[in-house]
Amino acid sequence: MSTEASWLELADDDPFGIHNLPYCAFGQDRFRWTGVRIGDRILNLAAAEGRGLLDAGGAFLGQSNLNRFMSAGRPVWARVRERLTELLGSGRHREAVEPLLLSVGDVRLELPFEVADYVDFYSSLEHATNLGRLFRPDAEALLPNWRHLPVGYHGRAGTVVVSGTDVPRPSGQRKAPDEPAPAYGPSARLDIEAEVGFVVGVPSDGPVPIDDFRAHVFGAVLVNDWSARDLQAWEYVPLGPFLGKSFRTSISPWVVPLDALDAARAPGPEQQPPVLPYLRAADHHGYEIDIEVRWNGTTVSRPPFAGMYWTPAQQLAHLTVNGAWARTGDLYASGTVSGPEPDQTGSFIERTWNGARPIQLDDGTTRTFLLDGDTVAITATAPGPDGSRIGFGEVAGTVTKPE
Amino acid sequence: MSTEASWLELADDDPFGIHNLPYCAFGQDRFRWTGVRIGDRILNLAAAEGRGLLDAGGAFLGQSNLNRFMSAGRPVWARVRERLTELLGSGRHREAVEPLLLSVGDVRLELPFEVADYVDFYSSLEHATNLGRLFRPDAEALLPNWRHLPVGYHGRAGTVVVSGTDVPRPSGQRKAPDEPAPAYGPSARLDIEAEVGFVVGVPSDGPVPIDDFRAHVFGAVLVNDWSARDLQAWEYVPLGPFLGKSFRTSISPWVVPLDALDAARAPGPEQQPPVLPYLRAADHHGYEIDIEVRWNGTTVSRPPFAGMYWTPAQQLAHLTVNGAWARTGDLYASGTVSGPEPDQTGSFIERTWNGARPIQLDDGTTRTFLLDGDTVAITATAPGPDGSRIGFGEVAGTVTKPE
Repeated sequence: MSTEASWLELADDDPFGIHNLPYCAFGQDRFRWTGVRIGDRILNLAAAEGRGLLDAGGAFLGQSNLNRFMSAGRPVWARVRERLTELLGSGRHREAVEPLLLSVGDVRLELPFEVADYVDFYSSLEHATNLGRLFRPDAEALLPNWRHLPVGYHGRAGTVVVSGTDVPRPSGQRKAPDEPAPAYGPSARLDIEAEVGFVVGVPSDGPVPIDDFRAHVFGAVLVNDWSARDLQAWEYVPLGPFLGKSFRTSISPWVVPLDALDAARAPGPEQQPPVLPYLRAADHHGYEIDIEVRWNGTTVSRPPFAGMYWTPAQQLAHLTVNGAWARTGDLYASGTVSGPEPDQTGSFIERTWNGARPIQLDDGTTRTFLLDGDTVAITATAPGPDGSRIGFGEVAGTVTKPE
Repeated sequence: MSTEASWLELADDDPFGIHNLPYCAFGQDRFRWTGVRIGDRILNLAAAEGRGLLDAGGAFLGQSNLNRFMSAGRPVWARVRERLTELLGSGRHREAVEPLLLSVGDVRLELPFEVADYVDFYSSLEHATNLGRLFRPDAEALLPNWRHLPVGYHGRAGTVVVSGTDVPRPSGQRKAPDEPAPAYGPSARLDIEAEVGFVVGVPSDGPVPIDDFRAHVFGAVLVNDWSARDLQAWEYVPLGPFLGKSFRTSISPWVVPLDALDAARAPGPEQQPPVLPYLRAADHHGYEIDIEVRWNGTTVSRPPFAGMYWTPAQQLAHLTVNGAWARTGDLYASGTVSGPEPDQTGSFIERTWNGARPIQLDDGTTRTFLLDGDTVAITATAPGPDGSRIGFGEVAGTVTKPE
């Protein structure tokens, strides 16, 4: 049990137990470091490496984010993880380690890695079907390519922000179908997209074969791909979403190592028609990750990641099959996670069916799209070994007035 | 005349005369520096600054690309440009400067700046109309949003490469309309897009008002947005181009400073219907840039940049109007430059009308789309002061076999 595996006093169900050990970047005053979380504490990794407690080849020394460590590759990741498990597990290191622990509440959590390119997929069958119905009511909801390839597009890397960063309501052009011309103004249909993102550690100078997924991908984060539906609807044909998405994309501060998700591996969905060979994995699997979406504290949805049609390994194989390089810090998100039930949808446009079915919050107010001052927090956990839970923490943001 | 303005022996019509002075990054052995070009020579800027010939606040010292200088802002750009004009113009600096000059042919030209985010617009009325006809033959060619906003999307920053880099033919999924399912294989319809790209120097933490264009944008480059039309046609609905574009995007090694293009300013096109206020500039202007596309040495097209419907200032104002930040190194390209005549089109899908009208090259062979071994070189010049020409150099690439 996780309690027994650490000398720290952790509850059995602590989502940041010894089997998780997610990485972060954090700051105090004007300094920045990388860290690893256990319970409600963070071990300063630069300090641990500097004192000879960790052999990471300098991956943490003088680093303000995880990029260098992520680029070091799986053997280094595995060695560091094993050593951290020992340092934070076995009581005999307590004396050396304890002075290097900080309380999560005492530090400023930063963007854990520098984002290279950001790609957003569209891999939930339910979400793609729902959005197709809402955006293109007169056409077939699911487009012909959808079951053959993981549809995706590039987003804006420069506006990926860490959880806790405010989200000013974006302005731009929007046009209702019955209006003759577009008008400029603040989005009136501001929405979220609850997603899981995967982060590339080891770069590739060509296609990443599907079975090499674990050699390249370092870990996972939660993503909120904030979306201005009115801006998006007017702009997105024919070149895809642009300003409707690019104002901000929030991610959780904790990068959960892929190794921490081994117990969460779940068989990948059956795919019909069969996919092309470059998308066929020897071990076709997704992950069981249970997401929860809270709107001003009220849980409004529980999207199940396990049901995603396209797996993270397929997404990476697809996005590089044309010879596009992957770089350390490339972030690719799953697309909105939506299950078949209304309270399993990962966006509010689905949850309220385009505003037609308002949601009641615990404070008695109702919502369709986001109001200024609203806070959305997305959390998730996954099954860990020995009955433990692996926590992703949260990605949260508050909508503020237009700038 | 430009000859008289420099102590270097330059022909009157040298496109790299004293009025141009484009910046670059270059390498010799394992070192990398930044430089400025005059004639067929490059002045090593780190050396010039290091010896006290230039006061750039350290913008060139120890730098392997232009990002630091580009972030320094217009007053520094102007001061450095003025000083370079003096150093390379007046003969009294010859003794100090001459030892710091290298021949262009003796160095390795590198990517001149680190690309932050890459955005590609779609701002030629003729190109958008042509592509609409070819990709959506049963619908209105120009979509309803096109005259209201500069349509664009994010591309892949990590695969932007400098001129001279080979372009391996990309593989991926493509499906002909009469085939029941997609197949995997090398693109059979590999194309180019001749564009002009603008580079952000000074970042913004919110919208860039249209009249602030010159305070943020450092200069311009040529762009070849290589495009696999078969991959693109199958993937691009509904989220836009992805693998059909992301394998490589080539740029010229010379960043032409905006100041060098003052004489090339041309009145912006009349826009009907009138655009929204945030897209209205006090000085609505584009640039007269004459582009030439050579296919294995044969000039096949001369796209005129002056005819673009949306201006670079409008593009930047639009891309940040939702509050998206601009970063140093952000590259945004115009979209394919096409004029009204067939021999003014900036892509081969237009030039050959989807392959129906093959082009004859000077060697007697014909082409529709690119063959392995083909080289495309895009060059451009613009009017400079006193009858001079401002050269952009070239962006060239050779298609190689699939990797």
